Amino acid sequence: MKVVGQELPRVEILEKVTGQSVFGADVRLASPLLVGKILGSPHAHARIKNIDTRKAEKLPGVKAVVTARDFPPVKFGRFIQDEEYFARDKVRLVGDKVAAVAAVDEETVEEALRLIKVDYEVLPAVIDGLEAMRADAPLIHEDCERYWAAGLVQGRKGNILYHKQSLHGDIERGFREADQVFEHRFFAPMVHQTYIEPHTVLARVDASGRATVWVPTQAQFFIRQSIAEIFQWPLIKVRVIPTEIGGGFGGKMLPTVEPAAVALARKSGMPVQIVMSRAEDFQTANPRHPCHMRYKTGVMRDGTIVAREIEMVFGTGAFCGNGLVIGQRAEMLATGPYRIPNVKIDLFCVYTNHANCGPYRAPSGPQLAFGSEQQIDIIARELNLDPVELRLKNAIEEGDTTPAAGGPLKSVHAKETLRKAAEAAGWGAKPREKNRGRGIALGYWLVGGMASSSGVKLNEDGTVSVLTGVVDLSGTVTSLGQIVAEVLGVDLEDVHIRTADSDFAPHSTISAGSQGLRSMGTAAKLAAEEVKKQIAEVAADKLEAEAGDLVVEGKRVYVRGNKEKGLSLAQVAQLSMAHKRGPIVSVQSAAQFPNQPAFSVHVADVEVEPETGQVKVLRYIAAQDVGTAINPLSARGQIQGSVIQGLGQALSEACVFKNGKMLNPTFLDYKIFSSLDAPRVEVHLVEHAAEGGPFGAKGIGEPSIVPVPAAVANAIYDAVGARIFELPLSAEKILLALQENGKGQ
Amino acid sequence: MKVVGQELPRVEILEKVTGQSVFGADVRLASPLLVGKILGSPHAHARIKNIDTRKAEKLPGVKAVVTARDFPPVKFGRFIQDEEYFARDKVRLVGDKVAAVAAVDEETVEEALRLIKVDYEVLPAVIDGLEAMRADAPLIHEDCERYWAAGLVQGRKGNILYHKQSLHGDIERGFREADQVFEHRFFAPMVHQTYIEPHTVLARVDASGRATVWVPTQAQFFIRQSIAEIFQWPLIKVRVIPTEIGGGFGGKMLPTVEPAAVALARKSGMPVQIVMSRAEDFQTANPRHPCHMRYKTGVMRDGTIVAREIEMVFGTGAFCGNGLVIGQRAEMLATGPYRIPNVKIDLFCVYTNHANCGPYRAPSGPQLAFGSEQQIDIIARELNLDPVELRLKNAIEEGDTTPAAGGPLKSVHAKETLRKAAEAAGWGAKPREKNRGRGIALGYWLVGGMASSSGVKLNEDGTVSVLTGVVDLSGTVTSLGQIVAEVLGVDLEDVHIRTADSDFAPHSTISAGSQGLRSMGTAAKLAAEEVKKQIAEVAADKLEAEAGDLVVEGKRVYVRGNKEKGLSLAQVAQLSMAHKRGPIVSVQSAAQFPNQPAFSVHVADVEVEPETGQVKVLRYIAAQDVGTAINPLSARGQIQGSVIQGLGQALSEACVFKNGKMLNPTFLDYKIFSSLDAPRVEVHLVEHAAEGGPFGAKGIGEPSIVPVPAAVANAIYDAVGARIFELPLSAEKILLALQENGKGQ
Repeated sequence: MKVVGQELPRVEILEKVTGQSVFGADVRLASPLLVGKILGSPHAHARIKNIDTRKAEKLPGVKAVVTARDFPPVKFGRFIQDEEYFARDKVRLVGDKVAAVAAVDEETVEEALRLIKVDYEVLPAVIDGLEAMRADAPLIHEDCERYWAAGLVQGRKGNILYHKQSLHGDIERGFREADQVFEHRFFAPMVHQTYIEPHTVLARVDASGRATVWVPTQAQFFIRQSIAEIFQWPLIKVRVIPTEIGGGFGGKMLPTVEPAAVALARKSGMPVQIVMSRAEDFQTANPRHPCHMRYKTGVMRDGTIVAREIEMVFGTGAFCGNGLVIGQRAEMLATGPYRIPNVKIDLFCVYTNHANCGPYRAPSGPQLAFGSEQQIDIIARELNLDPVELRLKNAIEEGDTTPAAGGPLKSVHAKETLRKAAEAAGWGAKPREKNRGRGIALGYWLVGGMASSSGVKLNEDGTVSVLTGVVDLSGTVTSLGQIVAEVLGVDLEDVHIRTADSDFAPHSTISAGSQGLRSMGTAAKLAAEEVKKQIAEVAADKLEAEAGDLVVEGKRVYVRGNKEKGLSLAQVAQLSMAHKRGPIVSVQSAAQFPNQPAFSVHVADVEVEPETGQVKVLRYIAAQDVGTAINPLSARGQIQGSVIQGLGQALSEACVFKNGKMLNPTFLDYKIFSSLDAPRVEVHLVEHAAEGGPFGAKGIGEPSIVPVPAAVANAIYDAVGARIFELPLSAEKILLALQENGKGQ
Repeated sequence: MKVVGQELPRVEILEKVTGQSVFGADVRLASPLLVGKILGSPHAHARIKNIDTRKAEKLPGVKAVVTARDFPPVKFGRFIQDEEYFARDKVRLVGDKVAAVAAVDEETVEEALRLIKVDYEVLPAVIDGLEAMRADAPLIHEDCERYWAAGLVQGRKGNILYHKQSLHGDIERGFREADQVFEHRFFAPMVHQTYIEPHTVLARVDASGRATVWVPTQAQFFIRQSIAEIFQWPLIKVRVIPTEIGGGFGGKMLPTVEPAAVALARKSGMPVQIVMSRAEDFQTANPRHPCHMRYKTGVMRDGTIVAREIEMVFGTGAFCGNGLVIGQRAEMLATGPYRIPNVKIDLFCVYTNHANCGPYRAPSGPQLAFGSEQQIDIIARELNLDPVELRLKNAIEEGDTTPAAGGPLKSVHAKETLRKAAEAAGWGAKPREKNRGRGIALGYWLVGGMASSSGVKLNEDGTVSVLTGVVDLSGTVTSLGQIVAEVLGVDLEDVHIRTADSDFAPHSTISAGSQGLRSMGTAAKLAAEEVKKQIAEVAADKLEAEAGDLVVEGKRVYVRGNKEKGLSLAQVAQLSMAHKRGPIVSVQSAAQFPNQPAFSVHVADVEVEPETGQVKVLRYIAAQDVGTAINPLSARGQIQGSVIQGLGQALSEACVFKNGKMLNPTFLDYKIFSSLDAPRVEVHLVEHAAEGGPFGAKGIGEPSIVPVPAAVANAIYDAVGARIFELPLSAEKILLALQENGKGQ
């Protein structure tokens, strides 16, 4: 292969680094913009007795005020229809949307928000998932069971919106027969995607009632669908133009400010821009689920795992949203990538009085691995087995079927990834150093693929344009271009590829879930192959040869074995336009893909300062099973980014609430890992062409965030013997643990 | 048919009438724009001895000055490479581009233009085509014969860039055998498209050197091609975004200000907007060719035409441009739509010191008809035959082959169109009234079709989006939507269709030449049919039926004879995405079409004021052969617009030059027909499904401008006996003619 596998810079990198890219808040139109802002509830749970917007409406400079009254009185939701865009009778989280205002400037908007008088009857709130499950917990949705729900929804009761129990084998016999049984509880708190660009939108509604929405999103078709659903419009009344996006990580797929901006634009007759503050974004967007876990594992003396029982409680927030997708994913991943004959899984999703949790890079992955992979470490130590060997003994292999994820699974490279990371780290050869330790964890992730379409057109000069809705978060666009260039025998620089909006893009899936390249790359590859076929047909006619005897390569098509007897792609394109079939172009679709496992094994070396509990990550090895790396530079970048983001979740991040109000909604108080904090991340790619992916590519964006908290936790234990069961692995908790086990100073 | 044939309003009409549409000069970006302006030559013909831009460059506020030195030193041209974007050694018309400036505001730009010092050596100029052909005429291109030229170029000599003589039959014997021979000379001056919006552009060049160009154009792919050619770039370095367009009529397909804006944006690093003044546009854009004609026709006493000799001299302007396309078209049309056994055609295209003439609604059509159809009228009167009968006797019929247009021609409805117009006018039944007269003319036009592609996607809710680059000048977008709706059994309101730019549109041909609907409509119909096939396949599987037994209708697909057993299109779309093939979508291409004749017959009733020569059009009948009228409302609108535009050319319009400088470049001095001047135009459609067009549609935008000047001229003769051989049919000329033949007062 000539283009696939090359380390090429991202196609749009010059615009990005010179500041020319137009992000959400940069969009301007010919006509003046209004400033929009949302009035959020100050209470986590309260009944709305009255909303009086009259004073706000009368304020000079105010052009529109909207509330639930401006929306059709229908509840929406993909799995459970439990949500209205603006709260009507009740607020269920701090920041729950009550009204919105558009005015000529920010000061007027702020003043108008202050003039809106809302009478609340404050109700008791519940933030923690376990507490929400208690019989005496305040009910967040009184009539939850009467909401419409999709067929897969089960076990609704009280605040529980989903409970599913899965049994595989005979769990009780498993534990009876086990030589030893381990049981631990873990907790991972809510963390936020912390994209640098907060949610923002510009909306315009034209005279025919059609909305155009500029938004930095990972999923223009999702946003289109959501807006249409909220307003009960046909999809073609909404155009979503994805701008450049300042980070997404799964957090920019559900609508936040978009419907408010559309409603304000419609009511005012002017374009409206809403830019969320950082605090609003922290408080009301769609962060990662907090998760309580109980892991109970039965093992034989030789390390063979014979039974595992997992209970997971996800705090889904005030609404179901996409919470169930994440729950279902958690069920598939819960056992870890191990052969276990007897399994019991209890999965709970519960309503809680905070933001609706949503997808965040490998949703549920880091939480579960934090529990599962720490427990594996505990077991290895207890049985006096090497943690690598214990994992190798139990890890799944090609063709295995796992309890919840089904199978037979293909392209399974858990063991090779384990060995590669161990070898790279010099596992076992590390000399013992005071307060220093090493931890390993095996990340397990499943990459699907959603239905998508992409197109390819051959231009009159032989260059190639790709028609796609893929949003570029991490180099996907460049990799997609490499795939098309490879098929058509041209260079990447001969291929133009940029993101089209929902009107003009062939329907594309979300640019998330590690599956953008796989889904849209497959569709683009099919389209390029069809274009190649058309090229050969047109050329065959002209060259008086069989299409099958032609080679498409080096921007030419020629008769195999006779390079002189050929045509340039420019000639073919022009020939086809002038005489044959018209322009050479094709749009092709790819169907959904079955889930495919992807593994990442991390080895972390840390140093713990016993006086303070401070952790320093000294060295970090990440091996990942990537299939074919279409662009290894981009693959490594994704893996390094995942690790650094994971280190924040491991060591410092958590959304802290008081009465449902987030106490640390700023980057001063909510500490993410920056490049200054991060160690050098050594990346090792495990490359085997994967079944079904374009040129054998696997999804790569998510797996390497999964094992980070567990690897670091295991390293901390190795360093100072402190076992922490709750994220983040803060200095405070480590110090406390050291004091408890007498090692603290 | 349920949607095709309906009189539906244009899909974007509300935005247009409420002023929301964004035209070229309305475009704004997030970053500030520079104002650009071009320095044009004050001389029609001069050698450039020096260009000194230093003072202009130093003026505060000036951000870039460009000249030919900023462009690759290559001449371009589709047929003859005789043109450079900025004049390098010589200027060849008043307004020939010498330099351009971008600055922070208009005043600074104007000041900078004044500071550019150009030393000219003025040369004698030639404006008139016949004069340019004289041996002693100044040579506009000294080395014309050495320029690269396409294979079809012939007869280059001096200022003649093209001379082709065509002989059919035996012209000399034809004239020998004729009972009577008529010979007349005619002249049609240069007229301008007079779109209300002058040429304008906004260009941005990004850090990677890629240009984005917002421009009101009829042909985003042509403009892309031209810019790439001028800068010697690959096509994918240029993105052309067509804005709403304030009229085109063929005049917005060739680049005017675009390359200057791109060069200024590149040099300044900022976006640059250039808005032409009306005078600049009149002086330098691409108006209709002035044309000298000599018609010599031999007829038998019974009116049978036996020989016709035509000499045409088109003043092409300073460069060839697309002049040859128009010349070739003129050759095909020159004889008129008549069976004539012996024909001789001499076609000359000559360089002249004025703007490069280009396409304008039915290029060459009104000029030739002005000659041909007046002569037919003269012959009829001379032979004492009815003008309708004379035309019916000679008109071509289905399957005829004409000398230059080839054949056999299909869908030929000349005679029916003649009869329909005559009947509608009550031809022959008009009582004789003083100073009032009636004239008829038969317009002949050939509609081709260029290679195009269009796409259709089925959205998740069963609505339909069309992927097309068609530019909407006259309702084409609406008609295209009707075609797609018809195929897919939905309403027009279920179809979304808007114009995509050159990056995201399937390659589309020009929205001009009466062939947009035919070419792009055919591609869209193919795509819709493919989508329908996919719908049936997905549904067949679910319904356990044969795809062939399914009916797609009423936004559903069901088993024939059992409406209950079916699925909504929304269900099919979702089913396909979830389980089957992925999104339902298709892009299809259509090849070039052979030329197809289209006829328009006009009957004009006029009153001439003998004291002043003033003409008033009292009544106007237009019958046009339109194939199937996809949207009769739109078809009639096109025809009425053509007539009114033609009336301006007939009665009042002409570009008047002195030393190559246009003397009347304003709407005060260049008088177009407004709706206040226009008579009511009664339209009669002759509908027969035409071979090859989508649902039988023919091109309709051009034919009805063709016969207008001739019909009015014949009516004037009928009223007062004044025969005018030169357009426009001004009061002055009429008065002069009346004085000459003693009828004036």
